[in-house]
Amino acid sequence: MSKIPVIEIFGPTIQGEGAVIGVKTMFVRTYGCDYRCGWCDSSFTWDGSAKDKVQMMEPEEILNELERLAGNNFDCVTISGGNPALIGEAMGTFIQGLHERGIQAAIETQGSRWQDWFCDVDVLTISPKPPSSGMNTDFEMLDSIMDKLQQGGRSAHSLKVVVFDEADFAYAKSVHKRYPAVPLFLQPGNENVTEEGDISARLLGRLEWLFGLAIADPEMNRARVLPQLHALIWHNKRGK
Amino acid sequence: MSKIPVIEIFGPTIQGEGAVIGVKTMFVRTYGCDYRCGWCDSSFTWDGSAKDKVQMMEPEEILNELERLAGNNFDCVTISGGNPALIGEAMGTFIQGLHERGIQAAIETQGSRWQDWFCDVDVLTISPKPPSSGMNTDFEMLDSIMDKLQQGGRSAHSLKVVVFDEADFAYAKSVHKRYPAVPLFLQPGNENVTEEGDISARLLGRLEWLFGLAIADPEMNRARVLPQLHALIWHNKRGK
Repeated sequence: MSKIPVIEIFGPTIQGEGAVIGVKTMFVRTYGCDYRCGWCDSSFTWDGSAKDKVQMMEPEEILNELERLAGNNFDCVTISGGNPALIGEAMGTFIQGLHERGIQAAIETQGSRWQDWFCDVDVLTISPKPPSSGMNTDFEMLDSIMDKLQQGGRSAHSLKVVVFDEADFAYAKSVHKRYPAVPLFLQPGNENVTEEGDISARLLGRLEWLFGLAIADPEMNRARVLPQLHALIWHNKRGK
Repeated sequence: MSKIPVIEIFGPTIQGEGAVIGVKTMFVRTYGCDYRCGWCDSSFTWDGSAKDKVQMMEPEEILNELERLAGNNFDCVTISGGNPALIGEAMGTFIQGLHERGIQAAIETQGSRWQDWFCDVDVLTISPKPPSSGMNTDFEMLDSIMDKLQQGGRSAHSLKVVVFDEADFAYAKSVHKRYPAVPLFLQPGNENVTEEGDISARLLGRLEWLFGLAIADPEMNRARVLPQLHALIWHNKRGK
């Protein structure tokens, strides 16, 4: 397959979370997911509600669209989903195209599938889903992905776990113990992704709660707790 | 001099800003500054108002106090001021003591003085002050500091500029152009560091403003814009 199912392209905006929090980026969101997380903030990428918005695009077409939207006003493209790891060779070609233009590729995926292009991603975030998602982590698969990343490639990779409750925090700890050499980011979950208006007070309350858990736990001395800055500022609006 | 003038030691808490935003850390705040920034959020470190709180401490005493406060519940100590770069050999000894215990040292200084121990700091933030501070940057000194860091040592260093207005943003751009290889963090200034109560809405408004400036400017594609998370959560309270 030489095309990529794209559901939205937007930016430039600021990356609001994870390893490159605060950096200017374009977003390319792919359609389709092998997960159905209960609290997914982008369920339109898999629940069928926006299926008619999907465009099958060649890597070159996406590159052109990014340039049309933002000219030279970005050095980073974040590829999100859905699960971008469902896409094979075409994504490798797209990442190569970014690099030829001097642009970094940042990608987040849950670690349920491997793709050889993972090793070419500049900022790769593996975000296994905690119990509150309703999903089960395939740790055999995750182990094999983390092994391959460790051995090969120039990818700077990190782990990110979204935390809604204490069970999720325990899960994050077990992930941290399993891959102690890999930087771990913790992010408080957004408990209502459809609420309208200013949700910043609620989100800051959850950040303070998660700060508290990390502060109290000597096994989390090296984890990093970060909010979603875009949600603090732009709330639940899409395309920001 | 074998002692360090310490005005407060607290934590563990979460580092709210800069290169290691989100990481658990203890804070050691040194007394004394060669600057008098108009908007300083720690003016008690130099304005005389808290002079009677200063303790002259041996590096070993500080290490003991950190352990007494937090046991093994931290892997990072942030040394802030005032300007910690006013302190010579004793700070080098302190940093060595941290490393012997497997603890990282993070330090922020404005880049007005060099100390040989800069090269031993795990996370060194050079934060030159923009026009709104009322201070003048000695760029000859800053050049020499950045040169020495580039050449020597194992220090991961970055630049951070606090931005209150468009003139500050222009200053940040000139700093970025001058040291293009060094990661640059931009941070919106807190315009009222004595206001009581919840200031998060005001601070998020300033973050959105600074996001907008960075988003619009192709020369800031690689800068990173970050808030002060501690101020979003704990507002202007000291010791958090």
